[in-house]
Amino acid sequence: MNVSIITIGDEILIGQIVDTNSAWLAQRLNELGLVVHKIYSIQDTDSAIKRTLDRARELSDIILITGGLGPTNDDVTKKALCSYFDDRLERNPEVLAHIEALFKQFGIHQINELNRGQADLPSKCRVLNNPVGTASGMWFEEAGTHFIALPGVPHEMKAIMETLVLPDFQERFVQGVFLHKTVLTLGIPESILAELINPWEVQLPEEVKLAYLPSTNRVRLRLSVKGEDRELLNEILDKEIAKLSNLIPDHIYGEEKDRLEERVGALLRQSNSTVATAESCTGGYLAHLITSVSGSSDYFKGSVLSYANEVKSDLLGVSKHDLEKYGAVSEPVVRQMAVGARDLLKSDYALATSGVAGPTGGTEDKPVGTVWMAIAHADGVESFKYIFGKERMTNIKRSATTLLLDFLQHLKARDKKPK
Amino acid sequence: MNVSIITIGDEILIGQIVDTNSAWLAQRLNELGLVVHKIYSIQDTDSAIKRTLDRARELSDIILITGGLGPTNDDVTKKALCSYFDDRLERNPEVLAHIEALFKQFGIHQINELNRGQADLPSKCRVLNNPVGTASGMWFEEAGTHFIALPGVPHEMKAIMETLVLPDFQERFVQGVFLHKTVLTLGIPESILAELINPWEVQLPEEVKLAYLPSTNRVRLRLSVKGEDRELLNEILDKEIAKLSNLIPDHIYGEEKDRLEERVGALLRQSNSTVATAESCTGGYLAHLITSVSGSSDYFKGSVLSYANEVKSDLLGVSKHDLEKYGAVSEPVVRQMAVGARDLLKSDYALATSGVAGPTGGTEDKPVGTVWMAIAHADGVESFKYIFGKERMTNIKRSATTLLLDFLQHLKARDKKPK
Repeated sequence: MNVSIITIGDEILIGQIVDTNSAWLAQRLNELGLVVHKIYSIQDTDSAIKRTLDRARELSDIILITGGLGPTNDDVTKKALCSYFDDRLERNPEVLAHIEALFKQFGIHQINELNRGQADLPSKCRVLNNPVGTASGMWFEEAGTHFIALPGVPHEMKAIMETLVLPDFQERFVQGVFLHKTVLTLGIPESILAELINPWEVQLPEEVKLAYLPSTNRVRLRLSVKGEDRELLNEILDKEIAKLSNLIPDHIYGEEKDRLEERVGALLRQSNSTVATAESCTGGYLAHLITSVSGSSDYFKGSVLSYANEVKSDLLGVSKHDLEKYGAVSEPVVRQMAVGARDLLKSDYALATSGVAGPTGGTEDKPVGTVWMAIAHADGVESFKYIFGKERMTNIKRSATTLLLDFLQHLKARDKKPK
Repeated sequence: MNVSIITIGDEILIGQIVDTNSAWLAQRLNELGLVVHKIYSIQDTDSAIKRTLDRARELSDIILITGGLGPTNDDVTKKALCSYFDDRLERNPEVLAHIEALFKQFGIHQINELNRGQADLPSKCRVLNNPVGTASGMWFEEAGTHFIALPGVPHEMKAIMETLVLPDFQERFVQGVFLHKTVLTLGIPESILAELINPWEVQLPEEVKLAYLPSTNRVRLRLSVKGEDRELLNEILDKEIAKLSNLIPDHIYGEEKDRLEERVGALLRQSNSTVATAESCTGGYLAHLITSVSGSSDYFKGSVLSYANEVKSDLLGVSKHDLEKYGAVSEPVVRQMAVGARDLLKSDYALATSGVAGPTGGTEDKPVGTVWMAIAHADGVESFKYIFGKERMTNIKRSATTLLLDFLQHLKARDKKPK
């Protein structure tokens, strides 16, 4: 079954709001194996609506329409649909009663003609009751194509989909099973990743599809498979993911919607350990990631953000001599920062960063993007050097996520060691 | 000029990501007076791309295409465009050198054939250099219609638009003068703001249009005016903005693209002062905002993130008695945190936060969203209490931006005082 989504309204076309309805709809339909092949955002005008319906029905079995159902005169979707299907409006007494009841809840006992007009609905459609609002949904069927119009207010659209449309779709249209699993990789550019996993990619069973979904410093790999037997499909995907994990163990940090900082938190919690940070170039972003996880106060002790060199020496005990000799962005300094923070904040682990975030401050020796990192633990301290790019915010974010990934690998390796 | 936007890629159609590129593009085009009348999201297949180009050009003068330009084989947009315009790929030596230079920054000196392939570009298009990535943009012109393909990664798309496409549009397509000025407000919900500024809004000259652009904790008010005489239009807008500033002086933190943290930084630099932070519930996000500004090391000394109570007492000198008696989220504690950080980090100002970010940890007395804040300075310390919402990340962000706004007002008031 092919699905098109049409969102109607100027707010999206002038960029006043971001269209989140389509993503929500697409995700829910996708879970049923229904494929959204096109999304249109159009103006709320009679001609734009009719023209797009003509186009969409050529390729679609189902057309989902959101928006344009408000009570005011600038919302023309209902009228356009009525004329498109050569239909007329009829006042629906049940819907009218529902609208009156909703207004009563807000203390309004006299509703006006605009509000009453929302109970006027096309005679040929199946009315989809809106449990949380005044604009009803409408389901038309013509020549084998389903046209379903829903309000644009996200929680109203979702309520009608959840209670009426998705259950109906499930019963009518869903044959077989459509499974997705996503593997999360970090710290490796898409093209290098593609080369690394090529031997695995070429041996994938034909029915398994692979997609690369890149964003800053990370690439999500999505595996999809379609078939009849859910258990079997699950096994197929798990087997392939296991092979992939063996191929690039150091670059995978989780599956599905895992967040790196949650995975780190879970491992710390599991081993009853605590962490602290000593940050220079990341300026608090690393701590922000760690503390964005609810419950992180169980394992996060705190941080010293040592932007000024005197804070590095006074609080973290970094040698003034080393600061002068090697500079703040150097291996000896970042190691002393980590060790100093671990002592000062009494944590089991401490993570430290010192680098040139840019755009200014670079030198020939230490160009913008140079970042030293360290992880201090009970048995010592490890340090790493990275050279990222020119853009300040990207350098800050890549530094923090890269160090978190290094820390995750460290925690995992520790777990595996014989005690 | 009519504009269509086509976003290409499965991520949007399966709902894995929300299409934020279109909203950004629509907003920027709108500022030039260019009208987006349709947005399409389609699959990255040859047939979908060609079919949609055929449809879009019927009604559009400009077609902006984003996505589908990655190096891997599942990205077919470049090939599809090449075939659509009956063109062939040619290796572009300048683009190749740029790609090699980018990889060198990551320490990769040997690039593979997939990467080199990104330098193969259609011979008939104008190549749009991507300053921050490896996928170039392409500008085709055929029969009076402009087709501009851009990478889908938001910061790459934006970089090419800002440096090459928008300035070119401005010159070619914009007739008359279309002026916008944006006033930035913070800490006041849209509906309350609308009520507050209603007397001003109703007296606006007819040719001045007002748009509310809300996001977390802030509402941007965009004033637009169209005409012929730039100087006159400028005067009209400035006059209205002056009236607005008189009406809500405490809620305006800047104009246009001002960032609150930059405004604060500029005032600190001007008075040769330094700042530090002591953060609990904001967990580093406040410091992250301050240090996201290039050159902030001139006025930012550092922070103590005191998640654990022992860090509050050991490092910041908060009284253990008060921690026990009043709890960490309390006025006495947040004031001592601020004063302690100012002493410890030897700064002129210190900003402190302590609150319940949620979703857990709330009590009847101190529900989730309760946040105490303080500003310590040479003459003492000021404290404020806010109650925000239920959502952790929103509470963290609102706390940080609200405290920065309070600090900005403090710095401004100080400037005005007779010395």
